[in-house]
Amino acid sequence: MVNPETASKILLDESEMPTQWYNIVADLPVPPPPALHPMTHEPAGPEDFAPLFPMALIEQEVSTKRYIDIPGGVLDVYKLWRPSPLYRARRLEKLLDTPAKIYYKYEGVSPSGSHKTNTSVPQAYYNHQEGITKLTTETGAGQWGSALAFATAQYGMECEVWQVAASHRAKPYRRTMMEIWGASVHASPSELTEFGRQLLAENPDHPGSLGIAISEAVSEAVADPKTRYALGSVLNHVLLHQTIIGEEALLQLAKVGDVPDVLVGCTGGGSNFGGLAFPFLREKLAGKMNPTIRCVEPAACPSLTKGEYRYDFGDTAGLTPLMKMHTLGHDFVPEPIHAGGLRYHGMSPLVSHIYDQGLVEAISIPQTECFAGAIQFARAEGIVPAPEPTHAIAAAVREALAAKEAGEERVILTALCGHGHLDLASYETYLAGTMTDLDLSDDAIAEAMKSVPVLG
Amino acid sequence: MVNPETASKILLDESEMPTQWYNIVADLPVPPPPALHPMTHEPAGPEDFAPLFPMALIEQEVSTKRYIDIPGGVLDVYKLWRPSPLYRARRLEKLLDTPAKIYYKYEGVSPSGSHKTNTSVPQAYYNHQEGITKLTTETGAGQWGSALAFATAQYGMECEVWQVAASHRAKPYRRTMMEIWGASVHASPSELTEFGRQLLAENPDHPGSLGIAISEAVSEAVADPKTRYALGSVLNHVLLHQTIIGEEALLQLAKVGDVPDVLVGCTGGGSNFGGLAFPFLREKLAGKMNPTIRCVEPAACPSLTKGEYRYDFGDTAGLTPLMKMHTLGHDFVPEPIHAGGLRYHGMSPLVSHIYDQGLVEAISIPQTECFAGAIQFARAEGIVPAPEPTHAIAAAVREALAAKEAGEERVILTALCGHGHLDLASYETYLAGTMTDLDLSDDAIAEAMKSVPVLG
Repeated sequence: MVNPETASKILLDESEMPTQWYNIVADLPVPPPPALHPMTHEPAGPEDFAPLFPMALIEQEVSTKRYIDIPGGVLDVYKLWRPSPLYRARRLEKLLDTPAKIYYKYEGVSPSGSHKTNTSVPQAYYNHQEGITKLTTETGAGQWGSALAFATAQYGMECEVWQVAASHRAKPYRRTMMEIWGASVHASPSELTEFGRQLLAENPDHPGSLGIAISEAVSEAVADPKTRYALGSVLNHVLLHQTIIGEEALLQLAKVGDVPDVLVGCTGGGSNFGGLAFPFLREKLAGKMNPTIRCVEPAACPSLTKGEYRYDFGDTAGLTPLMKMHTLGHDFVPEPIHAGGLRYHGMSPLVSHIYDQGLVEAISIPQTECFAGAIQFARAEGIVPAPEPTHAIAAAVREALAAKEAGEERVILTALCGHGHLDLASYETYLAGTMTDLDLSDDAIAEAMKSVPVLG
Repeated sequence: MVNPETASKILLDESEMPTQWYNIVADLPVPPPPALHPMTHEPAGPEDFAPLFPMALIEQEVSTKRYIDIPGGVLDVYKLWRPSPLYRARRLEKLLDTPAKIYYKYEGVSPSGSHKTNTSVPQAYYNHQEGITKLTTETGAGQWGSALAFATAQYGMECEVWQVAASHRAKPYRRTMMEIWGASVHASPSELTEFGRQLLAENPDHPGSLGIAISEAVSEAVADPKTRYALGSVLNHVLLHQTIIGEEALLQLAKVGDVPDVLVGCTGGGSNFGGLAFPFLREKLAGKMNPTIRCVEPAACPSLTKGEYRYDFGDTAGLTPLMKMHTLGHDFVPEPIHAGGLRYHGMSPLVSHIYDQGLVEAISIPQTECFAGAIQFARAEGIVPAPEPTHAIAAAVREALAAKEAGEERVILTALCGHGHLDLASYETYLAGTMTDLDLSDDAIAEAMKSVPVLG
């Protein structure tokens, strides 16, 4: 039995693992606005997504059902690392000398080391069920690519990953990890697609970008009826799959009799945040608890706190459906901060809508404060966090110090969505004292916002 | 509750964590031979170890007590990752189409990613209790150095690590990991010691060796009364601390009602193997089970299968007490295989004695077979193993295929003592097809055996 007075980890047995994902759309007071077709600006229908995704995922993308069963073939793979542990950060609390209780849900126990496998596995599963034999995707630093490589290996599928050329050169180990699981990895731009060849003809040393890699992965997927494309964040079905994080955390906190006063999560595309927060938001909307729920974004890419809530494209080239979201403009090129997974011009439409409705708050934090918090965390708790969740940790540290200031025993909940074992170069920079905060001028944002289409 | 029919992971709650280490010396039919003073060749006494280790560890080194209590201050830190999970490798079993059940105890969940923290934490604890404020050590690839850096951070101690210069240059990320936890890391040979200065004067680009790094760490420790030295394997007290692995595994297997028919563990210095195997050997000696227990060593460094059972030095320079162990000669320089943690000329005296008594078996496996097994494992089970436990995995695969051949449902137990997140370059070499098996000639061994002293 868990002893609330002493427990450092609160575990669930496999038999306690949730068997349904939670779809927050069913409980929102106002429904989120639909995606629009990029040309007609009419609401996009299933047929617009069919060349890219299998029907089961398209149905989840537009579903208003409250709970969706997790298939047995997905649960079997989840069991390799789920349920994930919920930690009480007792040694960090002591270091900060705070009366607050700090809990963190740790997703770094997955094979690829982050929460991304929570959605890569069902995405591979549903594609496999519909006879698809290959998935394509893009990856930057490599977190998402490796999560998909692992997932496709579980169902005997092929996986082809276009990795941004600059990362492909700078981070060979993520590529190796994908190859261990059997994926083919190409530097993007590549000679394999028309678009790639065109860019390489102009510049043989093209560094690539996520937008370009998406275009290559998409063009390969639509060209073959047995191939589809997979996306690692932003979309509704991705956030749906991640809700198992929050569902488990609810069960785990119940074991120690605690309810969060404040929940903080880092936001890039929004899937880690949504995964942790949505089940707690359900409880809040039902009047069962009343936590402050807060998004934490990098100061260098502040889509919620400095962007506008507008219809914009998901990709740089403007090929995707238009989604209403908090955006800095699809032309926005974030500074090269270390948290590569948070460098996205927009925000998940679902998180954007919920933020617009005033159901969650948002703050931004500069990266040097994030790494300072991560070093404190690593020395106290042992785990070296990935650069992305250092934002969540820095926010939790702020909350713990505020509780100390107020002399209140607040319960803080956050998610440590991945370990930093493949990101140690970031820490090297921080420890060498050469990491800087990349200031973002309002002018730069105003300039990028010009790329957002004005709808009729 | 654990369901034996479906469980992938068998977990223990913190309240079920063992609170005692097991000392196999108490149960051996014949006591192991003592260490000898390097000069007098008389049995070494506590005073010979006192400049290096705190009294509590020296007492454990020579103890004949069956069980030794784990201090509360150690259990508190263990709880950050212990109890560690026991996995049933169902997906690997299916891939191999074997009737065997494969269980593996996973130690990669520790902050530094291997079993080494099981001993670095108590070593730091006991030193701290005796007023020591700094520990020194050597490290090659960095597994042990990072385990000690983590442990000293937990007790507010300083940590100074001499890392073999070649590794210091080739693997900067392990160094960064140690620095995150607050350790000072020096390339060895260094300008900080007399011995290091001497070697650098001869060759400014000296690549270093473990033997040299040990000499530097030891000389720094003996020069300061508040500083001691810490060793990560080989010695009795180190193996003692690792027995928590096997004690947990016994409890976990009991939950699913299984008893091992065969236990395989990789051996370098012997601490991972001893940690898993000794509690099971106790049960075997007591007639409660009858597993075959097998050491697995690299074909390029086969101290048990090709070395001799003789008194030899633990280090290359011949400064340590003489220990009776299976040795290839302290002058033996193993080939640069990828499993850096298994490149040791000797074997723990305790494992050597038990092997000599016929209580355990030993085999050696070449590294390409090990990596082939690791790739199968990673694709089926997700986790990417460190190069050292690929030997244990390859042996488990051999056993599973033998069980298939025999048509028998054998229960196989092994330990996955660490993840390979910081060893992906090894996999890159394997996947590129450029890894070779480094054959070892009998002549090379005979030559190195000449360095073993002939006792009067």
